[in-house]
Amino acid sequence: MKFCPSCGHSTERLVPEGDNRERDVCTACDKIHYQNPRIIAGCLVAWGDKVLLCKRAISPRKGYWTLPAGFMEVGETIEQAALRETVEEANAYVKADSLQTIFNLPHIGQVYMIYLSSFLSSPEFSSGPESLETKLFSEDEIPWDELAFETMRLSLKYYFADKAKGVFNFRTTDLYKD
Amino acid sequence: MKFCPSCGHSTERLVPEGDNRERDVCTACDKIHYQNPRIIAGCLVAWGDKVLLCKRAISPRKGYWTLPAGFMEVGETIEQAALRETVEEANAYVKADSLQTIFNLPHIGQVYMIYLSSFLSSPEFSSGPESLETKLFSEDEIPWDELAFETMRLSLKYYFADKAKGVFNFRTTDLYKD
Repeated sequence: MKFCPSCGHSTERLVPEGDNRERDVCTACDKIHYQNPRIIAGCLVAWGDKVLLCKRAISPRKGYWTLPAGFMEVGETIEQAALRETVEEANAYVKADSLQTIFNLPHIGQVYMIYLSSFLSSPEFSSGPESLETKLFSEDEIPWDELAFETMRLSLKYYFADKAKGVFNFRTTDLYKD
Repeated sequence: MKFCPSCGHSTERLVPEGDNRERDVCTACDKIHYQNPRIIAGCLVAWGDKVLLCKRAISPRKGYWTLPAGFMEVGETIEQAALRETVEEANAYVKADSLQTIFNLPHIGQVYMIYLSSFLSSPEFSSGPESLETKLFSEDEIPWDELAFETMRLSLKYYFADKAKGVFNFRTTDLYKD
């Protein structure tokens, strides 16, 4: 941040009085502008022994496969964000059955929340504007080397490991790389 | 947001091409500035039949009681944020045993994440700069009418209900008031 979003004057990085870390502070109106982590919500949609993946049509990681997911918006719940993204990216109407994994990515200020999900009725889906392709994959069909993000690889690994055991666990995983 | 944090020119509210909601967009550099929900992380610290509460020394809800909690920072995990806040507000060193509740407050773009926690060793605590008082309360001692936030009231209610049953559940609760 170079300029104050409130008054338009330049900001500087300093530790405000009573605080213990550097913030963007306006040189004119003294307003402190905090930066906070962002939530990415998504769905691991399972159908039989398969899961739904989307090939990304946009940066970053264009052409790589991902679970439908995206930034949570003000005005919605985490679950609503996950379901909305699944409609936007895969035209798939699903329900969230349980929270599967929270991923912390502290180095980039992101928190992923992935829900185990299932189709509301039949497994209908198609590519939304942010997807080149949408497809159901069994475990051995998944393009493991062409996944967009480590979070998605781990979420899929957890899913198939839990499915083999017949018990789906809730996990928190901290990642220090993307 | 009135001014672009990147270039300092004025912004306007409009729906960018390919988007479906209004954003703050710079009239000069065209940069789109998204607003995202913020995470508040906190600890429900239990000791015997008591829980740790802090009387707020700051706005909002100054003088009312709360669990130690605050905004998650970039560079930390949710759990680290909860533990840091517990040190800052109550000088209490605790460990997070499990995630108790996720609260969605869509109308104000907030997500609370409360961890069931316990003291690392003896129950030592004292008021940090943001607290007027810190104290352990049993269920019938809690100042139920002087709690700062609905999230904290519910978290405490869930805790004592679960404790009576001997099973601590993970919950997600959506609130449409503060």
